[in-house]
Amino acid sequence: MSQPGNKSMVRVPRATRGDVPAIVALLVDDPLGATRESAGEHTAYLAAFDAIDADPAHELVVLDDDGEVVGTLQLTLLPSLSRGGALRAQIEAVRVASSRRGQGLGEGLFRWAIDEARSRGAVLVQLTTDATRVDAQRFYEQRLGFTPSHVGMKLSL
Amino acid sequence: MSQPGNKSMVRVPRATRGDVPAIVALLVDDPLGATRESAGEHTAYLAAFDAIDADPAHELVVLDDDGEVVGTLQLTLLPSLSRGGALRAQIEAVRVASSRRGQGLGEGLFRWAIDEARSRGAVLVQLTTDATRVDAQRFYEQRLGFTPSHVGMKLSL
Repeated sequence: MSQPGNKSMVRVPRATRGDVPAIVALLVDDPLGATRESAGEHTAYLAAFDAIDADPAHELVVLDDDGEVVGTLQLTLLPSLSRGGALRAQIEAVRVASSRRGQGLGEGLFRWAIDEARSRGAVLVQLTTDATRVDAQRFYEQRLGFTPSHVGMKLSL
Repeated sequence: MSQPGNKSMVRVPRATRGDVPAIVALLVDDPLGATRESAGEHTAYLAAFDAIDADPAHELVVLDDDGEVVGTLQLTLLPSLSRGGALRAQIEAVRVASSRRGQGLGEGLFRWAIDEARSRGAVLVQLTTDATRVDAQRFYEQRLGFTPSHVGMKLSL
């Protein structure tokens, strides 16, 4: 796939089952993720991977820097009646390794995702980010042009 | 399906292709929808309906009051690696006819969607709502127990 950022060895391949432990490690390596992820037990993560991988609406990718997984995101294409029957792309579970921030990797990963969404016919990219992630919001708005127009609400079942 | 709210004749069937004009009318019958929906041309809406209907991850339903479509929402099941590989349910494109507000219909529609999400194995229900829809946010938070924990961001392509 395309080469994000300014690192010539960085690629954005689709994640494989073998990448799941590295992706979980990225999810844990996060102030919020640390409280709700469990790096020691991969059964549920592998089941989720299989469900994601089986449905072409989803693309779970990793940011691969010369063989090392340094980032991840999940892109999902969502058909919708609203906005004129618009196909939406949704981005979830974005992480860049904390040791590799500030190197343009996140922007490169998002540029890949936005290009991929456009090439698949989406007219809108949407995401939500925890209200406490102020730096992420600034990044999405100022570097990528997202508009913080919505309130994201969640209900645990 | 179950009977939401306190109206014994109200049902929540899966939408059919024949319901699309009535659903589009609901989307137009809205302060934000009025500016971005087009009730006169249904081609794109029908194509979106077909994509939604073909994928079991989606359930597009109508709120049917004795044969009249008075509401709609789209429920989507989203597998995800984050939060321990949690299956999420996402609710989009929620509308209740403006002439039928304040009768418990919206709450009934949501109770149906939350029950359906739980029965399909979701551990979280998520939605975003335009920041200007203050009444909707109060309803989701106070009546249904949603937490406004996230910022929803969108980028037009």
